[in-house]
Amino acid sequence: MAVPQSQSSARVQTDFLSASDAARLVAQVGIVEVLRLMTEAVEADYGRWQDFDKSARTAAHSASGVIELMPVADAHDYAFKYVNGHPANPRLGLPTVMAFGALAEVATGMPRFVSELTLTTALRTAATSAMAARRLARAGSRSMALIGNGSQSEFQALAFMALLGVNELRLFDIDPAAAQKLVRNLQPWLPQFGATATVAASVQQAVQGADIVTTATADKTRATVLPEHLAEPGMHINAVGGDCPGKTELEAGLLRRAQVFVEYEPQTRIEGELQQMPADFAVTELWRVLQGLAPGRSSPQQITLFDSVGFALEDYSALRTMHALARRTGLLSQIELVPTLSDPKDLFAMVRSAQTGQVLGLHQRKTA
Amino acid sequence: MAVPQSQSSARVQTDFLSASDAARLVAQVGIVEVLRLMTEAVEADYGRWQDFDKSARTAAHSASGVIELMPVADAHDYAFKYVNGHPANPRLGLPTVMAFGALAEVATGMPRFVSELTLTTALRTAATSAMAARRLARAGSRSMALIGNGSQSEFQALAFMALLGVNELRLFDIDPAAAQKLVRNLQPWLPQFGATATVAASVQQAVQGADIVTTATADKTRATVLPEHLAEPGMHINAVGGDCPGKTELEAGLLRRAQVFVEYEPQTRIEGELQQMPADFAVTELWRVLQGLAPGRSSPQQITLFDSVGFALEDYSALRTMHALARRTGLLSQIELVPTLSDPKDLFAMVRSAQTGQVLGLHQRKTA
Repeated sequence: MAVPQSQSSARVQTDFLSASDAARLVAQVGIVEVLRLMTEAVEADYGRWQDFDKSARTAAHSASGVIELMPVADAHDYAFKYVNGHPANPRLGLPTVMAFGALAEVATGMPRFVSELTLTTALRTAATSAMAARRLARAGSRSMALIGNGSQSEFQALAFMALLGVNELRLFDIDPAAAQKLVRNLQPWLPQFGATATVAASVQQAVQGADIVTTATADKTRATVLPEHLAEPGMHINAVGGDCPGKTELEAGLLRRAQVFVEYEPQTRIEGELQQMPADFAVTELWRVLQGLAPGRSSPQQITLFDSVGFALEDYSALRTMHALARRTGLLSQIELVPTLSDPKDLFAMVRSAQTGQVLGLHQRKTA
Repeated sequence: MAVPQSQSSARVQTDFLSASDAARLVAQVGIVEVLRLMTEAVEADYGRWQDFDKSARTAAHSASGVIELMPVADAHDYAFKYVNGHPANPRLGLPTVMAFGALAEVATGMPRFVSELTLTTALRTAATSAMAARRLARAGSRSMALIGNGSQSEFQALAFMALLGVNELRLFDIDPAAAQKLVRNLQPWLPQFGATATVAASVQQAVQGADIVTTATADKTRATVLPEHLAEPGMHINAVGGDCPGKTELEAGLLRRAQVFVEYEPQTRIEGELQQMPADFAVTELWRVLQGLAPGRSSPQQITLFDSVGFALEDYSALRTMHALARRTGLLSQIELVPTLSDPKDLFAMVRSAQTGQVLGLHQRKTA
């Protein structure tokens, strides 16, 4: 809808990126480029860990799933994400995970950007996995087993091909249709990486001899997607799916054989594979590796394990990256989330003006 | 923008109420009716306190203010509010307090309603004050002193005239212009309540002989807006402005002379006037009064004090009330906050479709 410049500029507006426009953005910029930019952003922000006001997310659990709020802030930007996890959603035609969130100015509290974060979460999770694997996987890693071929899997595959040089993907899902969907979706991207994607008959077949193993399954149970005996010396294990209390993918013995790296220890102790281990089980926070305070992989024989649960800082990086890209591609729209007041101390004037027909708001009305 | 019904109905959309449309809603329904409905909703929800999953809000403090997230849920609806408090904002042309939030389905995590909550917060705060005062103020209370005549003051005045029968308002603000603004804004409403609004020369003049004293000042300091010696037997004190660590309005001695009522004790201990008192200072949670488990006012001579900081449950009530009213008045618009997927397990299809121009999203593009 056309808005006269004078009126538009006088109103306080919040940038908005819809789910469809986020998809358009990724298509226009290119998903490989978006993953590359997001990996750089996540790495840069983990590299200045001390700048952030951090807390474990708040979670509301119900019989059908979980709803979480994930806030984080530095001196300039406050970010939060709303995200759910409901494993039975696909039967109702909804994604298991849906998310949205906002960026606000710390100096004023003004919300500057509201965005879809369903697609964005998939991108930032893969970017974070790639960021960690660049420090933890064996140099020259080329093959990756991908266990769990659901919504997150394409993003993981692309990020590891683009940023790690992976060119051999071995796919496995208990649902063969999921693996076929993944192959189909990856097809257009394989040639540019000289890569192959093959469906394995079992977890064992997928994992055997792989340099990297990524697990990304969705069941909200204590599962043993990856049993201890399949772990081989030198492997990097990227465990993405164990991300809430009662939901794990790895056999506990595997954690004992590996050097375990986490995003934010207080949160991972509750939500990650780590919930299977005693409270004093040693782990390394990733930022310490990035800042050179702790070693990453220390030998080619070591098993490294990234127990990824997803941390608010990654959403901060992702929101800022998507905001910048949406601005550049012209895909931002505007919503009127906070009122424009001629006298900021006179909120009631809104009601007075509305009563006399003087509200000049730019608003979207459903016309269907 | 016109959307063909078939396409619109196929997409997952989230209802949206903008700041201007919230003002239009209040003007169309009538602010007195909105306050009445909201007071009933808040009272009904406090009355079923045990149904809710409650937690103290998370707060990110900075030198210039605070940003908070306030989640709450029952078995059906999850609600959260984003809200800031930045006392220096008016100098930048922004309100001190800005807010927005959402309602989601607990069963699926789907966000069903995103709304402005700046105006709505003012309404629900006044509704909560009125709900508490109906149980705590002396029967036949007619006069109210209103100390602090900023953004919240009109809403408090209207709620108490409409729901308590207050007909004598005595106004005081250290900024005389604020008091004049309040008088001006209230003028059209006074006749229907047979009420008068007079500006007092001092806090003492405003308070002396008043049945109810409402304090709603905004400074983020330990202030003594209401000194102990001004409290008179039988008064009900509605303390709205002390609502974050380091921000209080009442002299500590006043709390010792009064019976103190709170919304949610763990939060009020940190944020309310209560932060001045020892951890074992006795208070009563309001829901216990509503459920008949604790007395409200127990004698005409008692001083009752509602130490109001604002609790997430009130935003739950307010979001549901505004959603229903926005639907009834046709003021809802729609935003595409989560993706519509033909196969909910195939998120990547969004990227694939966008690449081939097949994204069918209803999206608002800035055209100015």
